[in-house]
Amino acid sequence: MGTLVLLRHGESTWNAKGLFTGWVDVDLSATGEEEARKGGGLLREADLRPSIVHTSVLKRAIRTAEIALDEAELSWLPVRRSWRLNERHYGALQGKDKAQTREEYGEEQFMIWRRSYDTPPPTLADDAAYSQVGDRRYADLPPELMPRTECLADVVSRMLPYYYDAIVPDIVAGRTVLVAAHGNSLRALVKHLDGIDDETIAGLNIPTGIPLVYELDDRLTPRTRGGRYLDPDAAKEAIEAVRTQGAK
Amino acid sequence: MGTLVLLRHGESTWNAKGLFTGWVDVDLSATGEEEARKGGGLLREADLRPSIVHTSVLKRAIRTAEIALDEAELSWLPVRRSWRLNERHYGALQGKDKAQTREEYGEEQFMIWRRSYDTPPPTLADDAAYSQVGDRRYADLPPELMPRTECLADVVSRMLPYYYDAIVPDIVAGRTVLVAAHGNSLRALVKHLDGIDDETIAGLNIPTGIPLVYELDDRLTPRTRGGRYLDPDAAKEAIEAVRTQGAK
Repeated sequence: MGTLVLLRHGESTWNAKGLFTGWVDVDLSATGEEEARKGGGLLREADLRPSIVHTSVLKRAIRTAEIALDEAELSWLPVRRSWRLNERHYGALQGKDKAQTREEYGEEQFMIWRRSYDTPPPTLADDAAYSQVGDRRYADLPPELMPRTECLADVVSRMLPYYYDAIVPDIVAGRTVLVAAHGNSLRALVKHLDGIDDETIAGLNIPTGIPLVYELDDRLTPRTRGGRYLDPDAAKEAIEAVRTQGAK
Repeated sequence: MGTLVLLRHGESTWNAKGLFTGWVDVDLSATGEEEARKGGGLLREADLRPSIVHTSVLKRAIRTAEIALDEAELSWLPVRRSWRLNERHYGALQGKDKAQTREEYGEEQFMIWRRSYDTPPPTLADDAAYSQVGDRRYADLPPELMPRTECLADVVSRMLPYYYDAIVPDIVAGRTVLVAAHGNSLRALVKHLDGIDDETIAGLNIPTGIPLVYELDDRLTPRTRGGRYLDPDAAKEAIEAVRTQGAK
């Protein structure tokens, strides 16, 4: 069958500032651009040539795809975008300082909002500064589909229809498909692919800028559970860094 | 009905060097990137918001769209690409120095190759340095569709099916559609829209980086013949500069 290549965008200007981002459409930082370029270089070196790319409708994933594909001499690929690949909507936390939020609400509440599978942060009001209600890019979404907050379970259920309808047909056709997206939309996809349970997924982190390759069999199951990173050492190091940070 | 916005890519690295480019996939120069950014700024200032963008499969048009839409805060737009929007294939002239070609073959032959409606340059051999035969992006083209040289008449006939099938439906639906492409694929489209005859089209030049807006009526005819440039003074100046250059 086909091959699925997942690429998580690199550092954004708000990652750098330590703010919750979610659906807020911030750009990549210079570091994030460099990560995207490296990701494209890894594709090129591995001679891995996707025949289509899917992105979210958020700039940091879109630009990651543009930069990586430019680096891989594949900027001519067909592109499809969907809000269903967006980052998790962070609700009322969008735009808030992470460290300050941790201090204000305590470590336990903070970790529930960040890592609980099914408890979303408080809802973001439609007239709040960082609400996306009224943004033209979501004009085609009926009001009941437009999220005001999301937990990872919500991301899984809104992401999967896009995977099934827009991505799977190309995989079944034997193609190599690139998905440039976000920490949580990719965690949702990996959870599905590897059959990870609701507790275990909390501990899974996908490093930024390192293509993660899944070869899928005819039941759309990964030939190798967890896939393989194009730069396994860098991936291991990045995962370890996040784990240590979490333990702090 | 809908609105069609045409954007010709700016200076490429080979424009800067005075080489015939055609289907050779060269990048924008720094000047070309700046032109694209200005083009996006003009869209933003005019509050003109396309809901979809079409590009060729050549990097200079793709990056023009990316840069312009980034500048207009519209990078999330759906994108479609087609070889049918490519620049004219310049045949055996691809990769050759323009001034040298003019000297070698004389002004008359040179102008026939550049401006004749129905006389293409000599064919480019499939094993020539600047042939695109075997390029993966054209893997889906049956051999008889793959050009080895083109005159403007050839561009009109291979471009129009894409206009009719991929662009017109969105115009009919009342949308604003952006097409980021090349001097000759856009001249071919303008020839069709404005009903310009085969002789007159030779004298028509479309300036780079200045969006050209056509509002189309329900018969898909321009409400204003020739459309309107978002920066008419700059467009006039650019057209005049080309005309003077041609007269030299």
